[in-house]
Parts: sequence; C-alpha cells; structure tokens
Amino acid sequence: MATIPITVAKGDGIGPEIMDATLTILKEAGAPLEIEEIAIGEAVYKAGHTSGIEPSAWESLRRTKVFLKAPITTPQGGGYKSLNVTVRKTLGLYANVRPCVSYHPFIQTKHPVMNVVIVRENEEDLYAGIEHRQTDEVYQCLKLISRPGCEKICHYAFDYARLNNRKKVTCFTKDNIMKLTDGLFHKVFDEVAAKYPDIENEHWIVDIGAAKLADTPENFDVIVMPNLYGDVLSDVAAQIAGSVGLAGSANIGPTAAMFEAIHGSAPRRAGQNLANPSGLLLGSILMLVHIGEAEMAERVHNAWLRTIEDGVHTYDIYDESVSKEKVGTKEFAQAVVARL
Amino acid sequence: MATIPITVAKGDGIGPEIMDATLTILKEAGAPLEIEEIAIGEAVYKAGHTSGIEPSAWESLRRTKVFLKAPITTPQGGGYKSLNVTVRKTLGLYANVRPCVSYHPFIQTKHPVMNVVIVRENEEDLYAGIEHRQTDEVYQCLKLISRPGCEKICHYAFDYARLNNRKKVTCFTKDNIMKLTDGLFHKVFDEVAAKYPDIENEHWIVDIGAAKLADTPENFDVIVMPNLYGDVLSDVAAQIAGSVGLAGSANIGPTAAMFEAIHGSAPRRAGQNLANPSGLLLGSILMLVHIGEAEMAERVHNAWLRTIEDGVHTYDIYDESVSKEKVGTKEFAQAVVARL
Ligand SMILES: CC(C)[C@H](C(=O)O)[C@@H](O)C(=O)O
Ligand SMILES: CC(C)[C@H](C(=O)O)[C@@H](O)C(=O)O
Repeated sequence: MATIPITVAKGDGIGPEIMDATLTILKEAGAPLEIEEIAIGEAVYKAGHTSGIEPSAWESLRRTKVFLKAPITTPQGGGYKSLNVTVRKTLGLYANVRPCVSYHPFIQTKHPVMNVVIVRENEEDLYAGIEHRQTDEVYQCLKLISRPGCEKICHYAFDYARLNNRKKVTCFTKDNIMKLTDGLFHKVFDEVAAKYPDIENEHWIVDIGAAKLADTPENFDVIVMPNLYGDVLSDVAAQIAGSVGLAGSANIGPTAAMFEAIHGSAPRRAGQNLANPSGLLLGSILMLVHIGEAEMAERVHNAWLRTIEDGVHTYDIYDESVSKEKVGTKEFAQAVVARL
Repeated sequence: MATIPITVAKGDGIGPEIMDATLTILKEAGAPLEIEEIAIGEAVYKAGHTSGIEPSAWESLRRTKVFLKAPITTPQGGGYKSLNVTVRKTLGLYANVRPCVSYHPFIQTKHPVMNVVIVRENEEDLYAGIEHRQTDEVYQCLKLISRPGCEKICHYAFDYARLNNRKKVTCFTKDNIMKLTDGLFHKVFDEVAAKYPDIENEHWIVDIGAAKLADTPENFDVIVMPNLYGDVLSDVAAQIAGSVGLAGSANIGPTAAMFEAIHGSAPRRAGQNLANPSGLLLGSILMLVHIGEAEMAERVHNAWLRTIEDGVHTYDIYDESVSKEKVGTKEFAQAVVARL
C-alpha cells in the first residue's frame, strides 16, 4: 500500500504525550502514513528562531503539505511571533474549521443537542500582525479585511455545508460599527449565499449572535466569521459542548493543510500521563478525511466514540455521574485501540 | 423636595413603551426627577442629522449630565453614525458597567449561580471609528489603545469592586497576538491591580476566558476588558443569566452618565404592549444610585424583584414551569408599582 507523507510536530507541554497517543492509535488503525518529524516551539524559539520553527522545517511542510501539529508554549516576553499565525499565513491556510459537538449523555454538558461547525477566516483581521506604537501612551493595531479573503472563506463555508449535508450557514459580524471592514465581510457573505440557494443563510451582529450561540447552540449549524470572533467563539462553542479539550481543528489552504487540537500546551499537566489526547486525535481524524482516507477516519472516530460512550475518561472530563473509569493518556489511547 | 433634572429619550421601536413603563414606576416610587425630553433615533437620522441626535439636545445633556436613553433604530445604509458611540465619546463616558445576574429559580437559566459585572472600556479599541478604504478590495479599521484609557477603566473596575464588596477583578485580553495594544491593557491592569491588594485579580486570554465565562460564570465576579470584547461578552453573560432583555447598563464619565438597556429596539415587537421594560428599568435603577438615591433604587429594585419572583412575566421570559401570569408592558409596570 502506498504511504502518504505527513509532517508531525510534538510541541511542548502535554504535546508529546497527546501526539504519541494519537500516532499510536493511527498506527494501530493501519493509517498509511509516513511520518516526518520537525521541531517547533519553546526550544526553537529560545534557539533564536523568532517564529518558533526551524527554517529547515518549511522544506518538509512544503513537500508533504499536511501538518499534524501538537500545541506549543510560546516563551513570555517580547520578540516572539506566534507560530500558529506564522504557519497559517506562510502556507495560506485561510480556513480554520472547528466542529463543536456535544456527546450527551456521555460527557457532561448543559447543551445536549449541539453540533456546530465554526468556519473561521484564518489570515486577515487583527491577526494580520500590523501593530505599532504611536507614542509612548498610544498603540494601534490594524484590522484588515479584503474582498478576496471574504470570498474565499464564505465560499468555503457554503461548500463545506453542501458537502457535509448541513442546512444553514450563519454569518457573524459587527457591521453596525465597522461598516467598511465587517461591512465588506457581510456584503460578500450575502453575495456568496445567493449562489447556494439550497442552503439557508442568516446574519447576526456578533454580540447578540454570540449570546444566542452560548445560550441555544442547537439553533446553529455552520457559522462563518472573521478571524478574531472565530478565535473567541470557537473556544466558547467547544467548551459549552463539553470541553475545549475535545475539539480538533483543520486549517485549510489551497495547497496545504494543518491539523491540531484547539486547546493549548497546558505545561502544568505535562509529563504526568494525565492529558486528554481527544482534541488532537479528532484533529487527526479531520486529517484522514483530508488525505482521502474517509473510511479509516470513520473507523477511528467510531472507536474513539465508543471509548467515550463506555465511560473511559481522562481526568478533565471525568464526572462521577457518567464516567466509569478514570484513565491516563496512554490508557485512553489503548482503550481506543482496543475498540478499533 | 428638590428635584434632579435628567434628560430622557424615548427612542424607536419598543423604546417609547418601555420608557413609559419605566417612568411610570419611577414616578409612583416618588423619584424626585425633573424630566427633559429630547428626540433621538430614526426620525432624527432621516431629518439629516448623521448621528441621530439633534444639535440642541446636547445642550440638555450638558446641563443635566444624566441621560436615560431608550434603544433606537439606526436606518439601513451608509452615512449614519452610531448614536450610542457618538454620545459615549462626546460625553467621555469611558466606563460601561453591565451587571449580569441570574434570578434562579424565578427565571429559567442554565446558570443558577451567576452574578457577574462586566466593566467594558467604552471609548477606544475598534470603536474609535477610524476606518478606511485602501483599495476597492481592501479595507482597514484601526484599533486604538491608550495608556490613559487603560488606566481609567482599570481603576474604575477596582474602585467599583471595592465599593460593591466584590472580591475579584478578572481581565480579558488577546495579548498573545496583539502584544502592543492588548499588551498595554494587560500591563496597566497588572499595575493597577497592585494598588488594590485587598482585591483578587487574574487575567485570561479572551478566547479561553470567554469559554469559561459561558460555561462556568459562577467563577467570575467583576471582569474588565477592552471595548469590543466587552460588547460581545456582556451580551453573552446577560443572555446566559436569563435574557439580554433583563440587563441594564451604566455609561459613566467624569462629568456625565448615560443609562440604558443593553438590548435593541426590536421594531417587530413595537406598539403591541409586549416588550419587557426590565432592562431599561434596571438601567434607571443604576441611575438612581448614580444621582445619590440609593434607598429609592433599592426600593424600586425590590419591587421589580418581587414582581419577577411572583411569576408576573412578559412574553420573552414566560416559561410555563416558573411563570404564573403572562402580562404586557403596561401590566408589568403596574405589577411593579403595586409592589413598591
Ligand atoms: C495560540 C493562538 C495564537 C491561537 C489563535 O489565536 O489563533 C489559538 O488561540 C487558536 O485558536 O488556535
Ligand atoms: C448599538 C451598538 C452600537 C452598541 C455597541 O456596539 O456598543 C450595542 O451593541 C451596545 O452594546 O450598547
């Protein structure tokens, strides 16, 4: 069987543990992957690479075009650029897709009927990284929104909805205040929506939209929005579905893609076999779909789901009323493997 | 008894109805107010005043320095400036204070133990209103953060906490991305926090902070943050506490103040005696405290609370499992008056 080369980075904090767990499961499932490891994160930053990635790593990323990435720790202090943002922008990963699903009654949630996909614009907005000091007392950051950027992400959202049999795409902006920038996003959304008459569309001002999402997420399906709103509201959606620890994310570009957990590197939990590998595993399942291994993706997902349903839970989602067995990272991975 | 002059605007949509209800209750309570009415909103915009307020109204606002404002409708289309933002900036109302409280078991909520006050910076950030077109395809909006702005709002939050016997002030920023602008806000927060050793302080990146707020609001007390995050997260907090329809808001400056509901003008509900006047009434109670009528504020608040506890509810919060009587705007006001 032909193997598919992917680039993998184990990151910092709990990163290596959840990556080992994820790779163990993928391997036992028979995923035809050829793994190239690159170094990213704290040590690389401290060695003087301001983006936390070694120049040589780009060569691997450009060749494999598929990146499975564990969370990293960015050192405190100035001079360090966000690795996530650098990779997203360098590889043109314009769409950040974050499914936020509740697993009621197996994982505690106040929102049992929730299956929302946040499609976050991933290159523009305040993340363009243009920030400057005007005087010692005044700082500015530029929010940038372009028509091509809006068109790409809105098309992506509707195409995603169509492909995944989703019924509605909602857009959030603050265009009553930012009439030009968010106004453009909303306008392009309406233009693109008109090309997908089979899919319902709606727009909410982000304040009341976010309030509705946090209160009645069952009323949402796919939601597309500018970068920063998507950053904040995907954490909100994932957390109220059950836990930010359970959400994976796909960063998609025209030629390359990166897959990750949405949570951070949790340094205080590191090295104790405590961490929940589910976020990264679900990210890797999105990766399997991306590389054309949809059946394998479903098999791994079902094994994971059965593990969760059997009450085999790591500490972060352990709840006496629903959990049966409290396990560590490795044992969780073994439980998934046993159910493949 | 000496009366205190205040400026009142009835606004659009449900505005006139909820304002009449609120003023009826204040009058029956014996609030010593001398009311000057000004016109704002849709008709004023359409008469050619781009900010939705007549030039002569400023004279009243500058004289009374206290503004009780109903929601307005901003006409669709370009050329109209936000009235809220104009008033806030013109009068220097730098602090927007939004208590978000749950009234369990009298009003349905998934978060029965919630009593959060959002202190939102109210003049800077992307609300500075500096937006421009670079090319036909690229638009920019400037996010502006100043040291004096950060100092004022952070001091306000800690002073508020001290005065109201609150134990903790939390700060939300995205300073891992916006290192200069949000970095300044965070830095000033830490500096100010050090001057209030009696009050606990903490900082969260706004993504995970918002997720925690939406999931476990019982862990928060006072939260201070830049303008746009405060806009979105105060709607989130109010809604999950019970309803955005139940939250009032105080906009405070060094010499003047504006009080309002946090919800909008709901044109489709207008003129039907349906609307819930609670948001504006709670805003007016914050006004009573501001003008030194704390006892009267408590009396009105208690009457309102008893009305809610007695299950006398408008349609928006009516719930068979807890409500006893479904009433209209006027009947709700009469029920509060009867309990004064
Ligand atoms: C780590 C950080 C730069 C990143 C972001 O803000 O995009 C993270 O919060 C995420 O959502 O992937
Ligand atoms: C109406 C709008 C301009 C306003 C804002 O964004 O501040 C509103 O949402 C609020 O929160 O008071």
